[in-house]
Amino acid sequence: MDINVAREQYKKLQAKLAAYGHAMSLIYYDGVTAAPKGTASNRSQTLAILNEESYLLSTGKDTVELLEFLDSRSAELDEKEQRSVYLALKDIRDMQKIPMNEYIEYQKLMVEADDIWHRAKETSNFELFCPVLEKIIDFTVRFAKYCAPEKDPYDYCLDKYAEGLTMQTCDAFFDVLKSRIVPLLRKIEKKPQISDACICGDFEEKAQQEFAYELMKIIGLDLDHCGLAETEHPFTTSLGSHFDVRITTNYHRENVSYSMFSVIHEGGHALYDSGSEDDLAYTNLDGGAAMNIHESQSRLYENILGRSRGFITYIFPIMQKYFPSQMAGYTAEDAYRAVNMVTPSLIRTEADEVTYCLHVMVRYDLEKRLMHGQLKVKDLPGEWNRLYKEYLGIDVPNDRDGVLQDSHWSGGLIGYFPSYALGSAYGAQFLRKMNEETDVEKCMYSGNFKPINEWNRNHIWKYGRMLKPEELLEKALGEPFDPTVYTDYLEKKYTEIYNL
Amino acid sequence: MDINVAREQYKKLQAKLAAYGHAMSLIYYDGVTAAPKGTASNRSQTLAILNEESYLLSTGKDTVELLEFLDSRSAELDEKEQRSVYLALKDIRDMQKIPMNEYIEYQKLMVEADDIWHRAKETSNFELFCPVLEKIIDFTVRFAKYCAPEKDPYDYCLDKYAEGLTMQTCDAFFDVLKSRIVPLLRKIEKKPQISDACICGDFEEKAQQEFAYELMKIIGLDLDHCGLAETEHPFTTSLGSHFDVRITTNYHRENVSYSMFSVIHEGGHALYDSGSEDDLAYTNLDGGAAMNIHESQSRLYENILGRSRGFITYIFPIMQKYFPSQMAGYTAEDAYRAVNMVTPSLIRTEADEVTYCLHVMVRYDLEKRLMHGQLKVKDLPGEWNRLYKEYLGIDVPNDRDGVLQDSHWSGGLIGYFPSYALGSAYGAQFLRKMNEETDVEKCMYSGNFKPINEWNRNHIWKYGRMLKPEELLEKALGEPFDPTVYTDYLEKKYTEIYNL
Repeated sequence: MDINVAREQYKKLQAKLAAYGHAMSLIYYDGVTAAPKGTASNRSQTLAILNEESYLLSTGKDTVELLEFLDSRSAELDEKEQRSVYLALKDIRDMQKIPMNEYIEYQKLMVEADDIWHRAKETSNFELFCPVLEKIIDFTVRFAKYCAPEKDPYDYCLDKYAEGLTMQTCDAFFDVLKSRIVPLLRKIEKKPQISDACICGDFEEKAQQEFAYELMKIIGLDLDHCGLAETEHPFTTSLGSHFDVRITTNYHRENVSYSMFSVIHEGGHALYDSGSEDDLAYTNLDGGAAMNIHESQSRLYENILGRSRGFITYIFPIMQKYFPSQMAGYTAEDAYRAVNMVTPSLIRTEADEVTYCLHVMVRYDLEKRLMHGQLKVKDLPGEWNRLYKEYLGIDVPNDRDGVLQDSHWSGGLIGYFPSYALGSAYGAQFLRKMNEETDVEKCMYSGNFKPINEWNRNHIWKYGRMLKPEELLEKALGEPFDPTVYTDYLEKKYTEIYNL
Repeated sequence: MDINVAREQYKKLQAKLAAYGHAMSLIYYDGVTAAPKGTASNRSQTLAILNEESYLLSTGKDTVELLEFLDSRSAELDEKEQRSVYLALKDIRDMQKIPMNEYIEYQKLMVEADDIWHRAKETSNFELFCPVLEKIIDFTVRFAKYCAPEKDPYDYCLDKYAEGLTMQTCDAFFDVLKSRIVPLLRKIEKKPQISDACICGDFEEKAQQEFAYELMKIIGLDLDHCGLAETEHPFTTSLGSHFDVRITTNYHRENVSYSMFSVIHEGGHALYDSGSEDDLAYTNLDGGAAMNIHESQSRLYENILGRSRGFITYIFPIMQKYFPSQMAGYTAEDAYRAVNMVTPSLIRTEADEVTYCLHVMVRYDLEKRLMHGQLKVKDLPGEWNRLYKEYLGIDVPNDRDGVLQDSHWSGGLIGYFPSYALGSAYGAQFLRKMNEETDVEKCMYSGNFKPINEWNRNHIWKYGRMLKPEELLEKALGEPFDPTVYTDYLEKKYTEIYNL
């Protein structure tokens, strides 16, 4: 085969896969935003077919031959092609190591698991979910051993969501977090609670939606290429390429901060997704490097920037415009304190900045032990509740709001959680780096995201999946990752707020 | 090949094509309902790929062999399979008769034509569109001759949108319409105009939307399987199968009747699309028999039922609930008269029941002459304007509101228009037939669509594309089509309203 013919073929293959991806993401998106509620099985019918077509296309004999040919002539490819072929082959080679019958059995389990988890959560019945999760853990360990027999199976899992991530890194990271955040939380708990009355009340959906669009514009999203919709759980998705990104939110009438910060959080993901270099579109390098880097952006915008005194001072008069009666009698400082109230709570996705990582640590600890056979699935709820008491100081009243709250495990996503906490910490160190060039605090007081977005674009966004997350981190920071930058940030901020 | 293996393969092929259809329709729907406005070229990229995949799948060598095999063993297929294979082969055989290079050239022209028509319409510049339409007519004549050399080329076109329809039928039909509607209109014009003040005012979008959902429920749509969205031009689409149908409307703040009747019109299409027998789903027999039958449903619900005195009497108190201040001081009779005001106007889609068919007749007359070389495209605006004066008695001030108003010709849809008028007339005869079993007027006074929907389901909807439109018509009516049923209906209704 001629190398240039092969390159052209590969380009077309990537474009086809992107088209299938577009269709499947849109069908999902339609299902949670606009579709009539009786149409789920109609979507399943179509998704099953498109999924199979896409799977056959990405792993079929012709594709494997093409990829292996390109790999063997790697020196004649440009840097982007090399990385793209490497990533495509990596997935296929993993797949090839798993016996087909086990893979099919696992796929069937996944369909069942989602349904059973939903029912178990609704009825707060862990026993229903227990046998399914046992099978999932069992498969996950076995697949890890097939694919990377030289590795610890949990390391293999961590690498799946954040290429290069290991337990060694996580352990060191969480040790620092634990040693700094738990004492911080204990100190906060001894102080009088601050008031969040300012963000509570009755906020009409229409006004919240208009405010959401305003926030999207302020943080620098291009509304010609980024849409907003309402769903039960907020998320971000790209359709086909980074030229069409959608975020979603949920409007809580009684508290404006939920939609406000979920829009900024998803907005951070969307800025990252939109920021790939244009020639990465319609290839497997379009989008984000890994989940930990993705969360570094979403949590940077949501918390470090979005909940900063500068930004709240800037945004408060705009909130007054959209919610005049609700904001009457309050100051920007009231709003600043309200959006930074710390309360240990049951649900990870609703947690404040201080307690958030503790929720993640519970999950990391449990996953690690499950994957090493040191914890049995049936003992999971007990251990969950014990750790919530230890880290967060709270009692878990039922499994629905405890061990059954997240969808990750039922979806087979073992090793995903640490990315949320790592991302938060990366964000703080990115900020310190940005501050060498720009006075970020000053920018926040005028709602000026331009220099921040510019830095992120040049150091993070534009690369798409070109760099491994650890390479990207090293390049952007020019220094090793240091979690104390994040814990210092938290201590400083909350010492001042709670007068510790 | 084993016949049962082939049947199974064919079933899978149909399901795959339905899945591609689902994806492509949804991408279009997303584009006009939810997508950010800078994302059109991203959608084109995906649509081009899916369209090619779907085209290759439906016309590829393997498919043709399979279809020909099934066709040769037709006696062993059930009735539905026979019809499905017949329709699939019909399309392919037509395609095969067109030289590939001409087909590709035509496809390119279509992309260009849409864009040029939009620009020509915006600037009211027919000269810009003229050379494109010349090519379209030229291709249409040539393709008709390739595909059906034994037929008149315009007959071939008519058959494309309403299998079996001929000029002979249309001529006889339009002669009756012309001889009855033009004099009726002249009489109406001599009478004092009735008032539509009752439906004019300022109608908030939110209330119109809630009213639209109420209307959908009243006419019998299942909101679990039928969605509503807002677009510039109202339309109906199915996604994947008749289990997921979407209608759209547009809210005019100054006149509530626009969204009200477009919802009922599209609702008629949606009822039909939703009503196919369930085992037709995921085959090419799902949906409507042809455009004329489709319009018989939409225009029956919109006009004959929706604008009847019975229905308006029923719906008026509900309108008062949604629009209390706007409806204050008016009676149901005021509303009845308001929604039946007759005014010759420029735009077909906004025309009243009496003048609507005259708009269609102008287009039919012009298309026929264009296809027979009796009219040159460059002379089209002059002839358009002359016929509007002759039939509707009005002067066309510019080509934007004249010959450039519809998108059909730029989309290559020559022969489509007559279906709108035929459908209207079929509806009237269906109603007469229904009245043998049910007192439809009485049903309307209580907003009871059940017996009407039941009749339509049993005589029209359930068949999908199983029957040719003419067979369906014959079976449902049990008598020949008689356009005077429609003209009698119009004369009776408007003689009373305008006191002729």
